Amino acid sequence: MAIVVQKFGGTSVSSAERIKNVAARITSTKAAGNDVVVIVSAMGDTTDDLITLLKQVTDNPDPREYDMLLSTGEQVSAALLTMAIHGLGYKAVSLTGWQAGVHTEDIPSKARITHIKLDRIQKEIGEGKIVIVTGFQGIDIHGDITTIGRGGSDTSAVVIAAALKADVCEIFTDVDGVYTADPRIVKDARKLKTVSYDEMLELASLGAQVLHPRSVECAKNYGLVIHLRSSMSDVEGTLIKEDKMEKKDVVSGVALDTNIAKVGILKIPDKPGIAAKLFKALGDENINVDMIIQSIHSSGAHADMAFTVNKMEMKKAVDVTNNVARELGAEGVVSDGNVAKISIVGVGMISKPGVAGTMFEALGKNGINIEMISTSEIKISCVIKAEQGKKAMEILHKEFDLGK
Amino acid sequence: MAIVVQKFGGTSVSSAERIKNVAARITSTKAAGNDVVVIVSAMGDTTDDLITLLKQVTDNPDPREYDMLLSTGEQVSAALLTMAIHGLGYKAVSLTGWQAGVHTEDIPSKARITHIKLDRIQKEIGEGKIVIVTGFQGIDIHGDITTIGRGGSDTSAVVIAAALKADVCEIFTDVDGVYTADPRIVKDARKLKTVSYDEMLELASLGAQVLHPRSVECAKNYGLVIHLRSSMSDVEGTLIKEDKMEKKDVVSGVALDTNIAKVGILKIPDKPGIAAKLFKALGDENINVDMIIQSIHSSGAHADMAFTVNKMEMKKAVDVTNNVARELGAEGVVSDGNVAKISIVGVGMISKPGVAGTMFEALGKNGINIEMISTSEIKISCVIKAEQGKKAMEILHKEFDLGK
Repeated sequence: MAIVVQKFGGTSVSSAERIKNVAARITSTKAAGNDVVVIVSAMGDTTDDLITLLKQVTDNPDPREYDMLLSTGEQVSAALLTMAIHGLGYKAVSLTGWQAGVHTEDIPSKARITHIKLDRIQKEIGEGKIVIVTGFQGIDIHGDITTIGRGGSDTSAVVIAAALKADVCEIFTDVDGVYTADPRIVKDARKLKTVSYDEMLELASLGAQVLHPRSVECAKNYGLVIHLRSSMSDVEGTLIKEDKMEKKDVVSGVALDTNIAKVGILKIPDKPGIAAKLFKALGDENINVDMIIQSIHSSGAHADMAFTVNKMEMKKAVDVTNNVARELGAEGVVSDGNVAKISIVGVGMISKPGVAGTMFEALGKNGINIEMISTSEIKISCVIKAEQGKKAMEILHKEFDLGK
Repeated sequence: MAIVVQKFGGTSVSSAERIKNVAARITSTKAAGNDVVVIVSAMGDTTDDLITLLKQVTDNPDPREYDMLLSTGEQVSAALLTMAIHGLGYKAVSLTGWQAGVHTEDIPSKARITHIKLDRIQKEIGEGKIVIVTGFQGIDIHGDITTIGRGGSDTSAVVIAAALKADVCEIFTDVDGVYTADPRIVKDARKLKTVSYDEMLELASLGAQVLHPRSVECAKNYGLVIHLRSSMSDVEGTLIKEDKMEKKDVVSGVALDTNIAKVGILKIPDKPGIAAKLFKALGDENINVDMIIQSIHSSGAHADMAFTVNKMEMKKAVDVTNNVARELGAEGVVSDGNVAKISIVGVGMISKPGVAGTMFEALGKNGINIEMISTSEIKISCVIKAEQGKKAMEILHKEFDLGK
């Protein structure tokens, strides 16, 4: 008998009707002869509603109490889902994080899961029950409820699946898999049957945020197969699993991120520590910097520096950069919110030189100017004008023959 | 340093604004040099909202999952209240039922509290914190969340106060104490400074439902002083505590219950077991019967029987009674929803004969016809016409000189 772990996000359980649909899908998996453990998020807007309420009470919430408050969301959806399953004539039981034995660090609101005590889950499975576990939460050594931060429920699902040595962890979402490019932009974008953990990590950190990087990392560590699929249909989604060495497309997908802005600081008198000064100042303001480029002027006495940030943080980043520029005696600060990042991702490019050249050439001959470049072993990203983003995606999808 | 336990109901914490008011009241008790433990109910309509959601999912909720669902309500209000207290510069921590060591029977939705493990509460008090505990819930031997049924949070407060050997258990509500009669009806109704447990029990089971009988019973068992007071003002309320033998008004208060109906079954051929048959049938349908009167016809061959039920249950009670009447060969069934129960309550009447006579005479000479009578050691109740209820209350309040 296989063990299947299924995870349903907030949209999948946003109403009584949807909860019943999810219940039907779960029981069909059980009826097919599997042991089923389900991880569920809070219903639709519940978490936002709780935060609205919170903000009326305090501007500065205590993290422990914040977790106490927010963890109720999953408890509500888990209980309702369990009762919907009962209504279909199946045995089921809901468990909170602490009941399910999900132990975490004692760092409220961003605890990591340290270990899972499986006793209770296994007892319930042994009694033939479908087990519904609240995602996003656990318990620390003090007996306090913790939440595990961003990507929480996906991570809960992966960790519990790994502990149970589940055959597969099915993550249900509102897309039906990972595509070679955004199908809303590229007509012949193709759904990938499988994608490697590393590719998924790069894609997740780019535009294609269907799965939180943290959960992918975790699945990679345990060699757990994730099946990313649609909660609305029965079609097969995409399997995220370890590469087999023999295969490999050079490029697996193209991703576009339009939510970035570029900031530049010009003609900084060059001396040691200027980069540290700038990026420490940005870090102090909690501004997340993505790409960084430093270039030396021909004279050798000055450097230019450019970086990208989330578009929402551009203004704040410019303010911080202006302060640093003044201090360092730089000539000035420029910024541009009208840019996008186009990336190609593929494990195959590790052993295949010339991929970058092919990418740059394809863009160049189509009149797309590259403003910044950054590379990793399995990804190449270029910053270009925002209005050329979709065109660039189509060009690269075709260039690397991804629609085949 | 005194230990004060305070309980706030759902109305007191129905909005962020009210939660802040409650926080101010709690911190002023702490600032006065007390250790404070607070028991809190779910915010205003939360419980009803959860039940509405539940009904969209199932008609037949599993009691364990029902508790899982409903217990979130208090967790939300406890976390918010704790954060509001932080906002006033005081240390505080919220604890769920299970964190607070509230252990119950494993009977979902109507568990009784079996014992309290005080370790966690005492640890938090020891660190100078105000402790906010979710009312209405606990944990059973299986590690499942339970709720403790009607009157839940009042009972939680009393049991925790008793375990802590608290100096007083303050129950905050939307009335400012126990009155000799309903002050909306009787102009010179007087707030009682103290009332005994037994009187409070009788009053609670009549119209004056400010405190659930279960919590009063529990306080009586432990000799715990309850201070019933208003959450809206600072005035002293009513102390509920053991009688001192010396004192005692004969009658402490008058209560009116308009929420009753009378059902009669006429000319039942008299033989052993007819009452058992009727009340067993009513019990099987979960119909709660209050007063019961059986009278024998002069012939000796037939009996009449009458009883009162909650007005909402009259139709159901009549249906059941009709079935039994047919079976027993009775002449017929009559019912009247247009009645009320007027009661006088007082520990003093135990040792004072003639109180009943005084009551009946006062009603009679004012043209109020008595349809049924029932008595206990400290209470006399009469069923009268509904439209005479308020007048009867005023008459008896005056007769026993309660406005003095």
